[in-house]
Parts: sequence; C-alpha cells; structure tokens
Amino acid sequence: MIEEYKNIKVIGFDADDTLWVNETYFRDAEVAFANLLSQFETVNKIDQELFKMEMKNLPLYGYGVKGFVLSMVEMALELSNNNVSNKTMQTILDIGKDMLNKPVELLDGVEEVLKTLSTKYRLILATKGDLLDQQRKLEKSGLTDYFHHIEVLIDKQDVNYSKLLNHLDIKPSEFLMVGNSLKSDVLPLVNIKAHAIHVPFHTTWAHEQVDEKETNGKTYKTVASLLDILPLLN
Amino acid sequence: MIEEYKNIKVIGFDADDTLWVNETYFRDAEVAFANLLSQFETVNKIDQELFKMEMKNLPLYGYGVKGFVLSMVEMALELSNNNVSNKTMQTILDIGKDMLNKPVELLDGVEEVLKTLSTKYRLILATKGDLLDQQRKLEKSGLTDYFHHIEVLIDKQDVNYSKLLNHLDIKPSEFLMVGNSLKSDVLPLVNIKAHAIHVPFHTTWAHEQVDEKETNGKTYKTVASLLDILPLLN
Repeated sequence: MIEEYKNIKVIGFDADDTLWVNETYFRDAEVAFANLLSQFETVNKIDQELFKMEMKNLPLYGYGVKGFVLSMVEMALELSNNNVSNKTMQTILDIGKDMLNKPVELLDGVEEVLKTLSTKYRLILATKGDLLDQQRKLEKSGLTDYFHHIEVLIDKQDVNYSKLLNHLDIKPSEFLMVGNSLKSDVLPLVNIKAHAIHVPFHTTWAHEQVDEKETNGKTYKTVASLLDILPLLN
Repeated sequence: MIEEYKNIKVIGFDADDTLWVNETYFRDAEVAFANLLSQFETVNKIDQELFKMEMKNLPLYGYGVKGFVLSMVEMALELSNNNVSNKTMQTILDIGKDMLNKPVELLDGVEEVLKTLSTKYRLILATKGDLLDQQRKLEKSGLTDYFHHIEVLIDKQDVNYSKLLNHLDIKPSEFLMVGNSLKSDVLPLVNIKAHAIHVPFHTTWAHEQVDEKETNGKTYKTVASLLDILPLLN
C-alpha cells in the first residue's frame, strides 16, 4: 500500500463503465435511433440533436434510461415534423426496454478487486441514474455482497459528495473514489480534498467530457485497468 | 406521549399524499389521457387498460412519473391500433412534464408536525418513486431542514424496511412510520414489529389498496389528520 492512502477507510466505486459496460449500450441505442429516423435527417445531425434534447430535459428527467427514452420520443416528433410513424414510436419504446433488460457485463478484474479490497475497507457503490435500474444491475452483477450499501446520487458534484461523506460520518481524507469519469468520479473529490483514482473507459459520454484545463494542477491517479488499483491499496 | 411510543427514536414519513398532494395529479393525468384517446375506446376502459399497462411495466420501470408517461405512450399505440396522431403523442409528453413541474401543495398541519417532532426525534423521509423527482419535491416543499435525510426505497415491502432499519442501526421497536398507504407505510412495519400510524388520504391508487382481511388483527393506529399524531408523540 502507498503512504498516501494509509488513512482510507471507505472506497466508493462508480458502477456504469467502471464495474460494468454501460455507455456502449447508450451508443448502440443512439445509432439505432439515428438509423430509424434517417429518412428525416442525416445520422450525424440526429445524433447531435438527440444530445441537445437530452441536455434540455436533464434537469427535469435526470440521468438514466427512462429519461433517455422520453427524449428519443420527443426528438422523433420534432425531427420528423410530426410525421413519425407509430411503428417507429413502438421501436423506440422497445430500444428502451432492451436497454433495461440487458445482461450485466463485468469489466476485467472487477470481482478480484472487490473481493480483495472488501476484507480491508468498507466498499460502497456510488452511482447516479435510476435507483431501480442501478439496483437491478447490481443484483444481476452478483457483486452485492461486496458492498456495504448502494448510494444513488442525484448528481455527482462537490456538494453531493460532501453530503455523502457527512452521511457516512467520515473525513474526506478517509474516502477514495474510483471511477471512469473525470467530471463525476474524480474532480469533485479532488475539490473536497478526498482521494480519487481515474480508470478510463474507452467511450465517454459527451456530457462527461472535460477540458484539459480543468484537470491541470489537480492531484489524482490514473490507472489503465481496475486491477492496477490493488497494489496501491493492498 | 403514550407509553407504547416511549422507545421511539426515529420517525419515518412517507411523502406523496402524506406530506403533500400527489395521487390527485396522477388521477388528473389519467383523466386527461382517457379523454385524449376517447375516439378509440370508452374512458372507463382506457382507465382500466392503462392501469394494467402500468402494472405490466412496473418491474421494468418502477414507480414514478417517467415510467407512467412511458406506459401512456405504449398504451396510446396499443389502444389506437397504431393510429394515434403525433399531436396526441406530444400531448402525452406534455402531461408528464406538467406533472414533474407541479408545485408542491402541503397537506394540513405538515409544517407544525415536523417542526414540533424534529426537536425530539430524528425524522427521515421514506418514499418510493424517482430519486430526482422526490428530491425536487422535498426542495420545493421547504421542509428539507426538518429531515435528517431522504431514503428513496425501490419498494416498500418488509425486506426494504428491514434493510432501512439495519442501515439506520436501530431496532424495530425504535422506529415509527407515518403514511397514507396501508400496503406500503403500515402493514410492512407491523410485520417487522416496528410501529406505524395510518393517515388516510382521500384518494388511493388501486395498486396500494388492500383487502380488509389483510389488516385484520394487525396493530397500528389510524388518525384522521397528521396533526392528530402530535399528542401521541409529544
């Protein structure tokens, strides 16, 4: 174990794209949606417009599949100038249900990492999105027993993490967050003087991307694979 | 204070239809939906079919407005035999957005009850539904400061409450739940030997209704208004 981590008591793991595949399914859905509506606009334009629609609806719908599906329905009406077929609408609903029914595909080394660290630290799952959907994925993953509990946060900004640490009754220096999103799993922790390790996933949602200048001078570690955190903490 | 409640440390309050109006908005939306599709079926039949659709989708979508809207969209396609207009689809999305944007209308005596009890007990908000939507309603309500925290449960069955008490690190005898639903806020608590007070709301969702035989021999109190719990606990 490295000196810097000697006070850590609780480790928070992000779930989507840190423990299991998620963004890939959203990307697949976006492609399917764009192809479905390709008679009305170019695929590239549809992709951009859908993202704008999601951002517009985010304050109202929040993160997760259901809000995404509602944004696709709204986008289909708008893009087609109210000429979208009922069959297409049904396909959009089916895309959403397929997403919710997807099997959980664990990323490399997840089980070994959680098994090893759970004997020494209190592990929590700290995710955003839909409570039911995240709980279902955790159950499907078979990882439930490694976690003390699941925290579904409304958003992952500094204030949300500060509240979480308050609730856990621990100091920032005692908390480490591990996740794939610089914006959601790393920078807020650095800001509140907790620890963070970045484990990049090959695909990042545009909403989660950050400018290089936002990470300048910030102290956190980046590892290539989740397995690489073991020597740092064990 | 009554003898029976002398060990209580934490009081859980249901939110929707216990602290503020909710079911009324769903009923209004159902009526609007049925009128919107009245060219295809009788209003009564549409109402019944929508409820069935909601129940069919509940395991996948969970509780809350977003799943309700997705069920309305699916129902419109089915009821119309794929002949529903894009304009009607837009109206369904608008019904959902209006629901999410509704002001929070507090029920009688809520503020007085919470203010009084919060000096003596730890109060938590224990609700089911959508995390973002419930958090938004709590913020709009102005009641945030009376609660230690908010627990959004996936469901309100015995096991969910047992987990909650574990998480709170208290015994069932130290917990009292207050809510409008016999099925969700009262009977599960009686089953795990915690306390419960039933405060009926004038409208109950069919999914929350229970047979009289389910309440036979169960020990809980029923009060006419939230204010009536004060002399029992103060």
